[in-house]
Formats: sequence, structure tokens, C-alpha cells
Amino acid sequence: MIAHLPLCSIKNPKKVLVIGGGDGGVLREVARHPTVEQIDICEIDAMVVDVSKDFFPEVAIGYQDPRVNLHIGDGVAFLKAVPEGSYDAVIVDSSDPIGPAKELFEKPFFESVAKALRPGGVVCTQAESIWLHMHIIEDIVSNCREIFKGSVNYAWTTVPTYPSGVIGFMLCSTGGPAVDFKHPVNPIDADETAQSTRPLKFYNAEIHSAAFCLPSFAKKVIETKSK
Amino acid sequence: MIAHLPLCSIKNPKKVLVIGGGDGGVLREVARHPTVEQIDICEIDAMVVDVSKDFFPEVAIGYQDPRVNLHIGDGVAFLKAVPEGSYDAVIVDSSDPIGPAKELFEKPFFESVAKALRPGGVVCTQAESIWLHMHIIEDIVSNCREIFKGSVNYAWTTVPTYPSGVIGFMLCSTGGPAVDFKHPVNPIDADETAQSTRPLKFYNAEIHSAAFCLPSFAKKVIETKSK
Repeated sequence: MIAHLPLCSIKNPKKVLVIGGGDGGVLREVARHPTVEQIDICEIDAMVVDVSKDFFPEVAIGYQDPRVNLHIGDGVAFLKAVPEGSYDAVIVDSSDPIGPAKELFEKPFFESVAKALRPGGVVCTQAESIWLHMHIIEDIVSNCREIFKGSVNYAWTTVPTYPSGVIGFMLCSTGGPAVDFKHPVNPIDADETAQSTRPLKFYNAEIHSAAFCLPSFAKKVIETKSK
Repeated sequence: MIAHLPLCSIKNPKKVLVIGGGDGGVLREVARHPTVEQIDICEIDAMVVDVSKDFFPEVAIGYQDPRVNLHIGDGVAFLKAVPEGSYDAVIVDSSDPIGPAKELFEKPFFESVAKALRPGGVVCTQAESIWLHMHIIEDIVSNCREIFKGSVNYAWTTVPTYPSGVIGFMLCSTGGPAVDFKHPVNPIDADETAQSTRPLKFYNAEIHSAAFCLPSFAKKVIETKSK
């Protein structure tokens, strides 16, 4: 979801940056998109990459794609050095905001992301659980609304192994060509992936749109913050 | 969800039967529907009712509605005795099919439900987790497709305290006026409930429709069984 929600929302994504995501799973999913020419990844912890390659080969398989360039380092510093407007999409597959990933939920980081995106480019960041973290989500939405001049949306999906069984995403676009995240313009063809050796098991266009339908308690908070 | 999915899908529901649901939570939600005139409930375990009234007053509050008639007994036997075409909607708020609720997932029970419904009447039954029980869901769908002559649909939602964090529902209609479960015709007015002392916190019309969007792996199994 964290890869397809942004990449199915824009036409012809070419350059993609992944922050975190060292296990390689996001790379594997980004690589399904045939228009993508370059996939940069900045992971802070080299051991995450090694452990994934040793013990989770079905996830780490993402590293085998020739379009992938791995950088080991701090995502915050990496983004600061990126020339303006470099990427069509940035995907932030981070851990939680309490701990070392704290900076990835703060305004200066979102400012760097916005700068690194081309006009009409999109970002998708891990954005916690509506069941557990509405106070954190409120702050993230508020920061994003300030910094991203295009759309700012919250989506969610279920992951049974995560606390409370769900995880959310912030999907934002920079000023420029409008992005309607709720209606994907760049579908991943289901028939095509069904014939591949690794067909998509979860994501489809309906699941994409449904991810933006929020329970009333979350909608109230998020839409208030969005205006 | 187990109450609003069926009751928002038909116009003017008047007579509703709840099987199980002894805690009273489903009654509380059914009672929000102003057209409902009679709410029968058949719960097998009197102690569930008593414990809920003692320790979960916010849930058991459903019993305070004057339209509610409580029957303590076996839902299977109760349904057999119901005159044909008695109800607009039947809601089966059961426990899991391994154990005492086993019969509530079998063909003879679904036959009794279909008989108890008026033409174009609807049933909503608890239907397990797509993450854990696809083999059980496959059987339920297959049974329902045989017995219900109208629509047969699977919906799901998140409940953080349930195993795997999700729960599903079978939504079926009898032959007669067609029911399009995915597009509610009897919305619960959000503004109205916002002004009530107990506004809806989760359910809304978007969440209703989104509940029918399934991940590809589940869709494949369920749609195959549905044809």
C-alpha cells in the first residue's frame, strides 16, 4: 500500500526515493511500476538490509532490481542534499515517531521532502494508527497542511501484525498539477500481475479508494486540521 | 457495523430479529433506526445479558428501548418457530463456528433465516476474519449462495480487539426486490446523530461502501464461490 497509493496516483512516475524501508519490501513493490527508471533508497541501518537479505529473501528481493541505488545514511541529511525537484515520488517507510525516527515526523523534514519533489510530485509517509495515535496524526496532518500546497489526505489499511491491526499513511502533493489521490490514474493491471510470478495479493484499485474512507471520529479530526 | 450494514441497505426496516448479541450493543444500534417498530432478540445465555447490564451499561443500554423483546433460548429453535416472512432484517451476532455456535454457520440455519425474512429482506451474519479464516468464509459464502436468492456479499471492517484486527460479515437478501448492499438507501443522518447524546463514532455512508472493497486474495475466493 505505501508504494502503490502514491505511485498509482500520478501518471508515469520515473524517479522515486524511499526513506527507510531497508528490508526491501517497498523496493519490491515500487519495482512493479514499469515507468519507474530510478529507485533511490536511503536506509540508516545497514544491518536491516543484511538481516533482510539473510532471513527474508522474499522481501529483500526488491534489491535485485537494477534500478535500485542503496545509500546507507541518515534520511534527513540525504534529503537536504537532494537538488530541488528531483523526484516524482518520495516514500517514507519509517518506524514510530517516539524514538530515533522522531525527526521524520517534524516540519523541517516535510519541508525537505516538499523541496525534493517536482511540482505535482507526491509523498506517502507512514502515519500511525487511528485507534491508538489520533493525537500524533493530528500533528502530522497539521504540519503537512502547512507545508504541502497540493492535496493532503489520510489513508489507512489493515496489517494484522501491527498494534491495533491498522496503519495509516499521509498522502500529500506539492503545488502544481493537482493530484486526486482517491481515484488512481495509473492502475497496476490486475490481469498482468496475475500472470506474473509474484501477483499482487492485497492491493487493487478498489482497495486504493476505500483506504481514504475514514470512520467518523477520525474524519472529524483530520478534516478540521485540513482546512 | 453489523446493525447498520443491513438496516441502511433497505428502505423502512420495521421488524428486526437479533440472534445472539446478548450484550445489547446491537440492540442499541438497531434502535437508532427510526422506522424500526419491533426488535426481537434471542440470546441463548441469560448470564451474558445480566453481566452486560451490571458491567457494561453503555452497551446494555440497548435493552432500555421499549421496542425490544428479549427471548432467552436457542436461536436455531426460535427461528424454526417463526412464521414465514416475519422479518425485514435478521442480524446474527454470534461467536465463532468452532464451539457452541457451530450450527449458526450451517445450511439448515441459513434456510430458517431465509424463511423468516420477507421477500427482499436482508440478513447480516458475523463472518470471521479474511486474515485467519478464508477456508471457513469459503464455506459460508458457498452455503449462502445456495440458499439466498437475492444478493450475497462479503463485507469487513476493523476491530482492534478481535484476532487479526478485522471482522467480516455476510450480507444476503432473499429473492424479491433487489438489494444493492454497496450503496446504502437508508442513510443514518450524520448531522442528526451528531446532535444526539450518543453520536455515531465509527459508521458513516463512506465506511459502509468501503466495507465491500476486498483485497485481491479474498475477492478471488469469494467471487468464485459467488458464481
